[in-house]
Amino acid sequence: METDIDGGAVTLVAELAGIAVFAASGASAAVGKRLDLFGVVVIGALCALGGGALRDVLIDAKPLALTDWRYPLVAVVASLVVFRFHPALSRIRPTMLVLDAAGLALFTVIGTLKGLDYGFAVYAACIVGVLSGIGGGILRDMLVQEIPAVLKEDFYAMAAVVGSIIVAVGARWESQIGHWTLMLTAIATIFVVRLVAIRYRWEAPKPNF
Amino acid sequence: METDIDGGAVTLVAELAGIAVFAASGASAAVGKRLDLFGVVVIGALCALGGGALRDVLIDAKPLALTDWRYPLVAVVASLVVFRFHPALSRIRPTMLVLDAAGLALFTVIGTLKGLDYGFAVYAACIVGVLSGIGGGILRDMLVQEIPAVLKEDFYAMAAVVGSIIVAVGARWESQIGHWTLMLTAIATIFVVRLVAIRYRWEAPKPNF
Amino acid sequence: METDIDGGAVTLVAELAGIAVFAASGASAAVGKRLDLFGVVVIGALCALGGGALRDVLIDAKPLALTDWRYPLVAVVASLVVFRFHPALSRIRPTMLVLDAAGLALFTVIGTLKGLDYGFAVYAACIVGVLSGIGGGILRDMLVQEIPAVLKEDFYAMAAVVGSIIVAVGARWESQIGHWTLMLTAIATIFVVRLVAIRYRWEAPKPNF
Repeated sequence: METDIDGGAVTLVAELAGIAVFAASGASAAVGKRLDLFGVVVIGALCALGGGALRDVLIDAKPLALTDWRYPLVAVVASLVVFRFHPALSRIRPTMLVLDAAGLALFTVIGTLKGLDYGFAVYAACIVGVLSGIGGGILRDMLVQEIPAVLKEDFYAMAAVVGSIIVAVGARWESQIGHWTLMLTAIATIFVVRLVAIRYRWEAPKPNF
Repeated sequence: METDIDGGAVTLVAELAGIAVFAASGASAAVGKRLDLFGVVVIGALCALGGGALRDVLIDAKPLALTDWRYPLVAVVASLVVFRFHPALSRIRPTMLVLDAAGLALFTVIGTLKGLDYGFAVYAACIVGVLSGIGGGILRDMLVQEIPAVLKEDFYAMAAVVGSIIVAVGARWESQIGHWTLMLTAIATIFVVRLVAIRYRWEAPKPNF
Repeated sequence: METDIDGGAVTLVAELAGIAVFAASGASAAVGKRLDLFGVVVIGALCALGGGALRDVLIDAKPLALTDWRYPLVAVVASLVVFRFHPALSRIRPTMLVLDAAGLALFTVIGTLKGLDYGFAVYAACIVGVLSGIGGGILRDMLVQEIPAVLKEDFYAMAAVVGSIIVAVGARWESQIGHWTLMLTAIATIFVVRLVAIRYRWEAPKPNF
């Protein structure tokens, strides 16, 4: 049975929370490179909004950040908070990792659904979904001149791939499964896989030399 | 009173001048990295045309560089001039800084107006306007493997933000203010803020450690 | 006389071969940086599909990689093969260079034709054609934090420029020349120029200091 929660409002709040977390992650990287106020805000905003913008450009949707002012506003405010209070924030790094896992889960699932909505095939929706989840972090790392962490460090992207497959394949049976059950299953899967991977230091296989 | 200058021709000449300056800035960076002829031309052209291309892709306009051959032609010629005569150019660096400030002012204002023309809200037009002004330089720095100067050095982007807000907000009263008065005010503001910032070495605030 | 080969099938096979080669080139770069499995696949796929995606975003076409599953599939498989068998592959580096020249030739010519098909002028079709050919390699190098090889090393991009001009200008007389004659001439020109440039270590001119 579907509940009668206001789904739009829930999604919006969740998405804005994800944006705040991703902006904080970008702003922290920029602070670490001693960039100035503007650099911190730009990298924070790009990290939060860039994955979605890449997705929207690829599927030919209007970039969300240009059509709803709340998205860039939250990104800018979160970046400013990091700029001002970053020493305090470094003490809550474990909390940040959990929030970042939540952001990854959310953005990937929402991005995958948007790909399906725009009429793309299952595999293509997975590509744009994963890109929504990891794209912002890749842009962040490219701007501060690091090899993107997601490409070398750990089980980050794999979690997104698994979740996007769940939601894209499951969408065929959405009427039986229920929209929220499907979304929550996929989100929870990414979130849990990511946290377990952090906890047990899973790593994706490395090439043999 | 609006004058009866041929506004289109004025804008075109100004824009082509801006493109030449930005191309020279990109080509100089490429020469500094000892890239070959093709590298110098590509980075010059990307620096001159990349900000506008990013804007056009985001607002779903046809990229100007692909619809008017004068834009890429000027970018390529300016890059070739730098390739051939760069030792002489390094002696006119102060002149280049002034021209670059003019290019920033012009591209930001024109980009903001284009955003409004395509029906985006004030804040969104400011985002694409600032991106038009600073995007090319960011691409240039990413290609030559530097952290984008605009993100760490000085009061460059702030000038663009101020000017784009003037033009985007002022556009509501455009009929009273007059199109050219508004544009010239915004362009002059960016240009003057930028030059004053260079002269007095203003810097955007840095994070505390 | 036009032959009655199934042109579509020939083009598809050739394109998929090009994608496999470019993916292998990206994956090899990623292996060289000791990235993990996911990093190798992502950089392989971006190198193979990124040039075409840039082109499609600029000309406002649907990205091919999102509309035909065979493209990303071949890119992923080729990347996985490199991940597993890279020591053996380094022994066939000369073969790889030849295949890469073939991929460059093919992608540039197909990209230029697609630009013309979408109604762009000759010069604009050349820009998007060259971008199709060299864009993937540029993305690859940006992600692994190298200055793009194509911008500094040798006669790579020049070959693409020459071939794209042949096909874009020749297209006006396509009915007299014949579609396949034109395409094969342009492809062969790029391929031969590139191989001769490798063999005789041609380099594009460097700036004087």
